[in-house]
Amino acid sequence: MLYRPPSITIIGFGAFGRLVAAVLASHARVSVYDQSPDAWSAASALGFEVIASTKEISTDIVVLAVPVQSLSEVLLDIAPLLRPGQVVVDVCSIKEEPARMMRQLLPPHVEVLASHPMFGPGSVKNGVAGAQIVLCPVRGTRWRAFAVFLRRTLGLEVIVTTPEEHDRQAAMTQGLTHLLARAFQALGERPRIRTRSFDLILEALAMVTNDAPEIYEAVTRGNRHVDPLRQDLLRALASLGKAPESAAAADAAGQ
Amino acid sequence: MLYRPPSITIIGFGAFGRLVAAVLASHARVSVYDQSPDAWSAASALGFEVIASTKEISTDIVVLAVPVQSLSEVLLDIAPLLRPGQVVVDVCSIKEEPARMMRQLLPPHVEVLASHPMFGPGSVKNGVAGAQIVLCPVRGTRWRAFAVFLRRTLGLEVIVTTPEEHDRQAAMTQGLTHLLARAFQALGERPRIRTRSFDLILEALAMVTNDAPEIYEAVTRGNRHVDPLRQDLLRALASLGKAPESAAAADAAGQ
Repeated sequence: MLYRPPSITIIGFGAFGRLVAAVLASHARVSVYDQSPDAWSAASALGFEVIASTKEISTDIVVLAVPVQSLSEVLLDIAPLLRPGQVVVDVCSIKEEPARMMRQLLPPHVEVLASHPMFGPGSVKNGVAGAQIVLCPVRGTRWRAFAVFLRRTLGLEVIVTTPEEHDRQAAMTQGLTHLLARAFQALGERPRIRTRSFDLILEALAMVTNDAPEIYEAVTRGNRHVDPLRQDLLRALASLGKAPESAAAADAAGQ
Repeated sequence: MLYRPPSITIIGFGAFGRLVAAVLASHARVSVYDQSPDAWSAASALGFEVIASTKEISTDIVVLAVPVQSLSEVLLDIAPLLRPGQVVVDVCSIKEEPARMMRQLLPPHVEVLASHPMFGPGSVKNGVAGAQIVLCPVRGTRWRAFAVFLRRTLGLEVIVTTPEEHDRQAAMTQGLTHLLARAFQALGERPRIRTRSFDLILEALAMVTNDAPEIYEAVTRGNRHVDPLRQDLLRALASLGKAPESAAAADAAGQ
């Protein structure tokens, strides 16, 4: 039997959809759907097949590269059109809410994989090899072959876990980073006097400061594990304002 | 007239005193004073002249490489012994308190320079060139020649400013970094799911986590500008828990 490369439709040709298309182009037959005429012409210019309507989605795999805020709308749109055996994959930055929506809104004859690539156009300029991707299987078993492809062919570090565990960990990794980036904007001008450690913090926060507002909303308010962590950080920072007994004792001993 | 390299006494042979000695060894005649027998033998082993008592401090320059918590004690100890024209330099991480102590406790015939090298043994393994040093002239003019040496010979970026402006800027650069490092320790285990930005934050915080407790105390509680900044950060993080009107409006528009 001859190997037939899989066919993939990418719904949403924004920054991340374009990255997915570029990475998969040499491994699959990629077609693109996006409502925006600008995205349409960009996809055509890059040589991808552009489909005019979600009615034409007949590919093996459907990748939903849309903001979590648009996910339910897209799922309701494509659900009646999907064929048995098709695999639907999302790439949202949170996983509990998208996994629940896909389980509820997609027909039972469709396989479902929730995924979160832990990289973006800005962080993989030298290729995706070595970057992480988190997979949360929701329905079906074909995700296993996809995981092998991601690991062996693309060189990604594949982490398989539950949507809840993803969101619990991402609350710190992403939620806290985005909250700190916002909070630092309220602190005024950056000092001229610098240290290597502070430079690294500014570099880290700058990486997320220009993310789309939908990403900020998703990884902070869209993740139920972020607010308890924010409260923990507030408590910890508040407690650092009080002079601990050990410090008072040390001061007394120093006099 | 033959060039005579300056003579320098380094008081305090801890981690930073050793770095100062190593950097200056080829440019000056360096002697070392430290109360600890361990430091004494370490200095001898490295080939530095070790002096047995602060009574023997007759060098052109005296560098005080001691924690800010010990500074007044050392100043009271050496003040009666200093000769006219000697230059006393501290290297504490804060500048308002040390500058005030040196102005008050050192005799008027001694020149005084408050300084803060923005690097440490961990951050200059490839040499100090390119690193920053902040100079706050307190008394006298010989610091100008020293500044030229630091810039031209050692390749340091020299920033001349007031103790107050140093501490105001360092409150963010150092104070906030140390507070965040402490606060993060209260947040539990580090997630396996990672991003480049969060990795950079962890790397930055790890750089200061192992600093001596005296450094933490100095750059946080010892700097009067840190607490207002901590309060600003608390307010900013607290306000991020409330759903802003714009987000509510965007959600409504998305339905």
